[in-house]
Amino acid sequence: MKMSEIKIELTTNPKEKPAVDQLGFGQVFTDHMFIMDYTEGQGWHDPRIIPYQPLSLEPSSMVFHYGQSVFEGLKAYLTVNNETLLFRPDRNFNRLNNSNDRLVIPAIDEELALEGLKKLVTIDREWIPNAPGTSLYVRPFIIATEPHLGVHPAKNYLFMIIMSPSGSYYKGGINPVKIMVEQQFVRAVVGGTGEAKTGGNYASALKGQEIADREGYAQTLWLDGKENRYIEEVGSMNIFFKINGTVITPALNGSILPGITRDSMIQVLKSKNIPVEERLISIDEVVEAYQNGTLEEAFGTGTAAVISPVGELKWRDEKMIINNGEIGEVSQMLYDTLTGIQNGTIEDTFGWTIKL
Amino acid sequence: MKMSEIKIELTTNPKEKPAVDQLGFGQVFTDHMFIMDYTEGQGWHDPRIIPYQPLSLEPSSMVFHYGQSVFEGLKAYLTVNNETLLFRPDRNFNRLNNSNDRLVIPAIDEELALEGLKKLVTIDREWIPNAPGTSLYVRPFIIATEPHLGVHPAKNYLFMIIMSPSGSYYKGGINPVKIMVEQQFVRAVVGGTGEAKTGGNYASALKGQEIADREGYAQTLWLDGKENRYIEEVGSMNIFFKINGTVITPALNGSILPGITRDSMIQVLKSKNIPVEERLISIDEVVEAYQNGTLEEAFGTGTAAVISPVGELKWRDEKMIINNGEIGEVSQMLYDTLTGIQNGTIEDTFGWTIKL
Ligand SMILES: Cc1ncc(COP(=O)(O)O)c(C=O)c1O
Ligand SMILES: Cc1ncc(COP(=O)(O)O)c(C=O)c1O
Repeated sequence: MKMSEIKIELTTNPKEKPAVDQLGFGQVFTDHMFIMDYTEGQGWHDPRIIPYQPLSLEPSSMVFHYGQSVFEGLKAYLTVNNETLLFRPDRNFNRLNNSNDRLVIPAIDEELALEGLKKLVTIDREWIPNAPGTSLYVRPFIIATEPHLGVHPAKNYLFMIIMSPSGSYYKGGINPVKIMVEQQFVRAVVGGTGEAKTGGNYASALKGQEIADREGYAQTLWLDGKENRYIEEVGSMNIFFKINGTVITPALNGSILPGITRDSMIQVLKSKNIPVEERLISIDEVVEAYQNGTLEEAFGTGTAAVISPVGELKWRDEKMIINNGEIGEVSQMLYDTLTGIQNGTIEDTFGWTIKL
Repeated sequence: MKMSEIKIELTTNPKEKPAVDQLGFGQVFTDHMFIMDYTEGQGWHDPRIIPYQPLSLEPSSMVFHYGQSVFEGLKAYLTVNNETLLFRPDRNFNRLNNSNDRLVIPAIDEELALEGLKKLVTIDREWIPNAPGTSLYVRPFIIATEPHLGVHPAKNYLFMIIMSPSGSYYKGGINPVKIMVEQQFVRAVVGGTGEAKTGGNYASALKGQEIADREGYAQTLWLDGKENRYIEEVGSMNIFFKINGTVITPALNGSILPGITRDSMIQVLKSKNIPVEERLISIDEVVEAYQNGTLEEAFGTGTAAVISPVGELKWRDEKMIINNGEIGEVSQMLYDTLTGIQNGTIEDTFGWTIKL
């Protein structure tokens, strides 16, 4: 094992932890971070855990100019028995390497990254909030640091993991969201970077989000970039529809992020013998199902919210109210199952969790 | 005027300038940089020129995660009369604001930016190399600095201008390049960010570039993202074809960067009564012209090289050798005209240049 390689420098100046009832998202960070350098010729080296601190970078660092950055998002949970649990972290590091490949960033050692994460979570364990629904959000990311204004894959990178205690997504119970289908702007196209978790994908999505905001919608639902007709995903969630008893989600076609929650949901549905299909699904099919009364549920899936029921879906002038704007039966079951596995009240028969 | 607002702090420790015959590109920077902050509620503020120095940023700064970064590229030249000249810098700041709009970054004051640039170039004037073909490369850019892991337009930004003395693009005379048409990967699609100069666009292009490199080609020619059929542009240049006496370049359709050199070339061509068309042009049309002997010239245009003649264009198994792999007549005329205006040997009848 590579564990021994990870050097550790503990802070001498621990920060105060935020009150559990005042947790937000992604603004407060723990006392330590994991960091590792890449140098051409030498590869990834010097994995270490150090006090959380600013980075000093040249203004010509390539990440500021050419967007060579990828990231991941996962969570560490405290179970009801006070154990520390990670949910499918291997999938995140595997996806990070797929993103790396798309942006010509050298692959990381996934095992080493996982060992680094485990050590980091163990060191900052006191930062995992213990109220229901709370967790420690974990953000691995890689940036190109070579100070050079030439468009080419950088010769230097930083891989880091930072962590932020995060409040419950659903403070007042699960609230269905209003989502707007975007008509003009496009998030991704086959052949582009849609299936990778690159910084650029999120920047390009801000414009659609701004339009949705303005009209009072929480998020954007993206259609495909070629025909502007097939459903892809929401800003930071994959999307599922339950039509006439069958749960349908867009197939992974190269322009959709392969969500880990998405994959987990599909497995849970199959284990419960609920019909589930991964395939092309057009916005017209959804509208038709709505009009003939067979659109039973719609929900987004992602690490942040686990499940986000869609209460209203807007497409052009059509405002589709789904399941009376309430969470549906299947959505609720999926939410309960996944959060139960994550907080240790439901047995993990899938082998998804890692206890520290 | 806002000039008075720009504070200046000169370096007490000037760096050594590189020898003119050892100039590369984008690795050595001048003694000073321009910087300005954006804070929500306060707007852009504190424009200042300070010694070139590293940036200290939180690991959670949004530019590292969500790719909210845009940039520009232009040049300052020394004329044969030793005057300092900028080429259409107003177009660059205007395009920067278009890029800002696409990524929901607050607009900058274009006039103030131009004043800042003029002051900066004047202060670092000694850094402009004076050998033929050399220049001072100017890189304005904006990054999102808010330390927050939430996907939304940032509340804090930095706008900066850094400058790098750059060698002659054509040391041993103009060498036509070999370019490969990309089949699998896509740079941009209508509705995406292709017409903006965002960091993410360049990261997503690295994969195609890697393939071209491997096959011995200098750059990638991108086709459109919808039909993979229409010609868009090269990695960092717009593209022109001369077919049967007419110069043709892809129309600005929303997924192509509106190059300032491209626009200048079109104006020069018109002024010389050479037929020029901006329209859809498919790769099939180019291949057909090649096969029937009417493909006379092909060239890329951009700030870095001004003109880069295409000597070979590869599409699938077809290797098209254009104009015997030599620079064509029109390409040479355009190159001579633009570089003449830039070095002060040809009168600028277009009003493109600003003398400091
Ligand atoms: C664009 C996008 N789609 C889908 C997801 C859901 O992925 P996961 O379930 O792995 O969190 C995310 C969040 O990571 C995302 O950013
Ligand atoms: C993608 C792309 N296209 C075209 C160009 C040419 O633009 P300009 O002539 O303004 O330098 C550039 C360079 O800036 C570029 O990066």
